[in-house]
Order: sequence, then C-alpha cells, then structure tokens
Amino acid sequence: MPRQELEYPREPFSTGNRYSSRGSHALETIHRIVNTSPLIHVAFNDPNSPFPAVLPMIGQMGSFDRPSADLGDVLELYLHGYVSSRIINLTRNPPTPEGLPLTISASHVDGLVLALTPNSHSLNYRSAILFGHATLVTSVPEKLYAMELITNSIVPSRWEHTRVPPNAAEMQSTSVLRVKIATGSAKIRSGMPHDERGDMEDEELMKRVWTGVVPIHTVMGGPVAGPYNGVGDVPEYLERWRIEENKEAEVFAREQLKE
Amino acid sequence: MPRQELEYPREPFSTGNRYSSRGSHALETIHRIVNTSPLIHVAFNDPNSPFPAVLPMIGQMGSFDRPSADLGDVLELYLHGYVSSRIINLTRNPPTPEGLPLTISASHVDGLVLALTPNSHSLNYRSAILFGHATLVTSVPEKLYAMELITNSIVPSRWEHTRVPPNAAEMQSTSVLRVKIATGSAKIRSGMPHDERGDMEDEELMKRVWTGVVPIHTVMGGPVAGPYNGVGDVPEYLERWRIEENKEAEVFAREQLKE
Repeated sequence: MPRQELEYPREPFSTGNRYSSRGSHALETIHRIVNTSPLIHVAFNDPNSPFPAVLPMIGQMGSFDRPSADLGDVLELYLHGYVSSRIINLTRNPPTPEGLPLTISASHVDGLVLALTPNSHSLNYRSAILFGHATLVTSVPEKLYAMELITNSIVPSRWEHTRVPPNAAEMQSTSVLRVKIATGSAKIRSGMPHDERGDMEDEELMKRVWTGVVPIHTVMGGPVAGPYNGVGDVPEYLERWRIEENKEAEVFAREQLKE
Repeated sequence: MPRQELEYPREPFSTGNRYSSRGSHALETIHRIVNTSPLIHVAFNDPNSPFPAVLPMIGQMGSFDRPSADLGDVLELYLHGYVSSRIINLTRNPPTPEGLPLTISASHVDGLVLALTPNSHSLNYRSAILFGHATLVTSVPEKLYAMELITNSIVPSRWEHTRVPPNAAEMQSTSVLRVKIATGSAKIRSGMPHDERGDMEDEELMKRVWTGVVPIHTVMGGPVAGPYNGVGDVPEYLERWRIEENKEAEVFAREQLKE
C-alpha cells in the first residue's frame, strides 16, 4: 500500500495566490528540487541593511537521526560555511531562540515557452522555497554526517574517494548549519504554451508565429584533470555517474514537454 | 582609448569578507550574469513573516532613457508580474519613499571542482547580487519598452515575431516594476582545484584521488512545436540563435577551466 504523501503546512507567506495549480507543498517534490541544485540561494534579514542578504551556497537535505530517510520524509537542510562568515556569526547569536530565520530557494529552468503573444510567453521551471531556522551543529558525528552528505551531493560516493576524515584544522575552520524547516512550497511549470482563444482564432497570426517549447537541460562535459592530478584515468564511479546523469537530464527535459 | 570600467559602491552589506579575490563590483560583470539568467530570484522583507520572501521571476536590465546603453552602463532592472500579486501590491504601497527594497540574485554553475580533500571541493560559478528599490512603471512607453526587453531576453527579436502590441486587457493585467540599483556585487570562481601543500605531498593520496573539474553548461534542445502551432519549420531567427548559444556555452565552460 503506498504511503501517504507528506506535505508542508500552508502559511500565508508560503502560498502564492497566482497560478496556484502550479504549486505544490509535497515534501518529496520540494526536497528533490533542492537536492538536485548544485547551488542554492540563502536569504536572511540583515539587521544592518534595508535589503535582505542573499548568499549562494552549497547545501543538502538529509536526516542525521535517520540517515536512510528518503526524499519524502521530514529532513533538515545542512549548509556549510567558513567559521567567521557573516551567516555563521549571525547564527551564533540568533535573533530568535529557534535560530536564524532563513529562506532557501532553488530553481531549475527546463524550457523556453514560446506563445503567440508576449504575455503568454513563459519558462518551464521547477522552483522550491524553504523557510526554516538555522542553528550551529556542535556535535562532531553530526558535523561529519553533514560534511559527507554535502560532499557526496557534488559527486556520489566522492567522500570515500578523498582524504577523510577532515583533520583538526579543517573541522575547526568549517562550520555546519542545520536548518529546521518550518514550511516550504514548490512552483512548477511544464508542458506547452497556452494562448487566448481570440489569438488562436486569428488565422494570419497562427500562420506567422511559431509556438512551442525549446527544452533546456544541463550537461556535464568530460572531466578535465587538474595541474597536480596523479591518477591516470578518470575514475569509473565519476564517469558512470556523469554519463547516467546526462542521459537522465535529457530524458527529463523531454518529459517536461508533456502536459 | 578604453573607457573606464564602472563599479558599484562597496557597502558593508554588499561586500563578502571571504575569498574577496573572487569578488567583483564591475557593472558589466554583474549585469551580464543577470541578463544571461533566464530565471532570477527576488527577495524582499515581508512585514507579516519572520522570513524574507523570495520569488523566482523573469527580469532583464536595460535603460529606457538610453536604449542603446551597453552592459557596462548604469542600467535599471525590469520585472513584470501579475497586477494583484504580493510583490506588486507591496510596491504600490512601499515602506520607503524610494520604493520596495529588493535583493536580486542570479547564478550560473560552470563546473564541479574535485580536490584531494572534501573541504577543498567547490563549484565553479558566477553569482550576482543586486540591491535596489522597486517602483511601478506607469508610463505606457516605458512599460512597452520593458515588455519588449523581457520578451527578447527569452529569445532575441521574439517580440517582433509575435502579436504586438499587447492589447488593453494585457496592459491592464500586467504590471512592470523598475528597480533602481543602489549597489551590487558578483562572486566568481573559475579554474582548477586548490589543495593544501601537506596533502599534495602525500604520495599515496596523490595516486589515489583524481583531481580536476567536471565542466557544466546548459544546452537548448531542438524546439518542439506545440499542439496548435501552425508554422511548418522552426523559424531561422530561433534556430540560428539556439545553435550559436549552445556553441558559446560549451566554449565558455571550457574557458572557465583556465586559471
């Protein structure tokens, strides 16, 4: 029997009022968008600025208490940063007992949607927003869990193929944040253009303007060895994963064209 | 004689304290990152939430007063949104006379940087942040300028190949925001991995761990006609641009490998 799909609570600040059919509160949908984004944006209120601060960061969702948890389970977001960076300093002295309020965003662009009129042009995309409170991870096992999670988000199993565990200086200079998620949402557009009936009944226009989608996906090129690389061939765990990911990205882009 | 390169002012909230060699305040660098991002993230303080609000949006930088301005000139950011959306409503009644304070972020991921140790792993990326104040565009000519700018940011010259100008209902239902930029910055990482000397002197490690970069770029696949498309072939202005962009993206990804 399929398990019930978990959803985040709908809060006024997490719910769009436009195109709500494109919205989702499903944990699995939201977590997948975040965990497949190499770079995510982290926003927080800066007490010294009228503007929210936004940082590009590497992060990954997981569960230290239940490492085998899957994407549809309750997860925390782990971020790592330099020990004296602004976000780490703010988290050390958070404005609320729950931690530093953060808004995390992650987006993939899947296609250009070309319609009869400028107003009906759009993008196919998957975008996730998470709201949560960040605290510093102080336990060494949890910190190591997060470092491994984040390293393996760059390339699966990369952690075990590097020099581990981190030494004392590395552990000291790197801080890890755990973000307990309050709520979140996703917005997804897929499929073909939609135009107004009036324009679709305009024969001259229909013969003149091409409508459809230009699918977009990312490609990982062949690995290029660095100046001090001492290993002859590109390792199989890397190449096999890269080729598989490239194939999946192309298939996914095509599938996003279906309504 | 080459013109002087304009830079944004350095404010405490716009200046990173880490890896500052990766930072740039050059207008051209920052504007180029924003204008080549199909999707950008717009953050603002929400008076009803402890968390900054973040929206994925389509936007483009330009100059209504001087349409021939290039990327290194002073430009404004134009965003468009549904007339009753939250960001438009907040801009209609802004918290400051200058407008609604917004933080705009745009990022490209150019590669996975694989080093000897987890801590030295990184991404090659280009990330831009802009801080500015949004006001509603009320003049019809400026609104049309912005709509054309945004439409042509999806595909160059697309505007003239669609049904234009927008009709009264379209003009009424779409609002355009002009963001006057206060300051901004870019962070860029390119090139190869960097490891600590101690690890590079470890012969066993050097023979075991492959180091280098996996370049990443986006690809636009072949255009797929929509269900009501009435034009036989994909138009040449679209195909020529798509093929050229794909080539440039691959070349750019390779060039980012150089130090």
